[in-house]
Amino acid sequence: MRHFEQELEKLKAKLLEMSALVESAIYRSVQGVVEKSEDLAQQVLRNEARVNQLEIEIDDMAISLLALQAPLAIDLRLITAAIKINNDLERMGDLSASIAQSALALMREPVIRPMIDIPHIAGLAQSMVRKALDAFVNRDAEMARSVLASDDAVDNMRTASFHELMSFMEKNPQQIPQALWLLSVIRNLERIADHATNIAEDVLFMVKGIDVRHHNEERTAVNQ
Amino acid sequence: MRHFEQELEKLKAKLLEMSALVESAIYRSVQGVVEKSEDLAQQVLRNEARVNQLEIEIDDMAISLLALQAPLAIDLRLITAAIKINNDLERMGDLSASIAQSALALMREPVIRPMIDIPHIAGLAQSMVRKALDAFVNRDAEMARSVLASDDAVDNMRTASFHELMSFMEKNPQQIPQALWLLSVIRNLERIADHATNIAEDVLFMVKGIDVRHHNEERTAVNQ
Repeated sequence: MRHFEQELEKLKAKLLEMSALVESAIYRSVQGVVEKSEDLAQQVLRNEARVNQLEIEIDDMAISLLALQAPLAIDLRLITAAIKINNDLERMGDLSASIAQSALALMREPVIRPMIDIPHIAGLAQSMVRKALDAFVNRDAEMARSVLASDDAVDNMRTASFHELMSFMEKNPQQIPQALWLLSVIRNLERIADHATNIAEDVLFMVKGIDVRHHNEERTAVNQ
Repeated sequence: MRHFEQELEKLKAKLLEMSALVESAIYRSVQGVVEKSEDLAQQVLRNEARVNQLEIEIDDMAISLLALQAPLAIDLRLITAAIKINNDLERMGDLSASIAQSALALMREPVIRPMIDIPHIAGLAQSMVRKALDAFVNRDAEMARSVLASDDAVDNMRTASFHELMSFMEKNPQQIPQALWLLSVIRNLERIADHATNIAEDVLFMVKGIDVRHHNEERTAVNQ
């Protein structure tokens, strides 16, 4: 294996390490909300520094590869995709930390019913992150496409939860603060799913050279 | 001027064009909310396709420059920064489109009081975008630092509006749906400010080689 290919493998391995950390942050932050576990929420906040450190390491690796190897074509697309994926993963780490903060805020409040959907949305978002990274590492267009499909499912679940929380608030104005924290958790999970979708779109561009970004232009047009 | 430098200038000009479009989308989407102007909101939705198109063009320009010129050191950092800034600008375009959607949803509802803060937050977010891009184009570290300071101001305004909207909802449960749309507008403005902050951090890294990303680790630590 050429030295350059070894370096590319290291870059991929580092991105997988970061992705594993982020997946576990999503899981723990949501369990922090659902199980009212201060310990899990604190773990997420403590691990954020490691995610941030990895982001810097991965950027440095990618920039060195560009500087030293002047790669062409598919390798160049792989490295520029890695820079973008790195950015998205770091944002997901931030979003998990926000969910952990919501968990802490909700710690002493009674559980309210609409929360039951949160673990489903979280499970889906987490599997989207894993699939998007697997698609990147294995240059797997099929897998990347499955992430795009899941994003629509997350949007539908989010809309349903949103309406449920809204009527809950109308009926229980004294519980509005809790409901707003839950709404924030759901929004953050939706944003995590959006970032996973971005990654899947970058993978499709890298593998196929097809630009599927902004595949949902039609949807926006319908809303007009 | 070398051919390579001309190409870099073109890349910067294209990013400024994109930034101008995004700034105007922020302004129009918020005016759509404040003035209940369906026309302004629709303009934002129509212009989204242009923002998306520019994102693809800028990525292509950056990747060609990397492939054909194999730039080193400061030029390499400039081009990788451009790829990230492009990503952030496109996300801001999406967020403005979400604000425009909120404007349409709020079109026939009576105005509620907490809205008065929204134009202030929007004005600040918009000026952060402009300053971050000026800092990039002029390699101006001072300007980039001023963006980081504004981000704290936006966070404070967001927290104040959030509390105001929360007590509004508790007192007026029948107006919860409108209040939630306004909350969504404020959150989206906060996210726009976050993206401008990302850009400013990338500029500081590019200019000084200093990594100021995650400058608010201490703040997270305090929250633990």
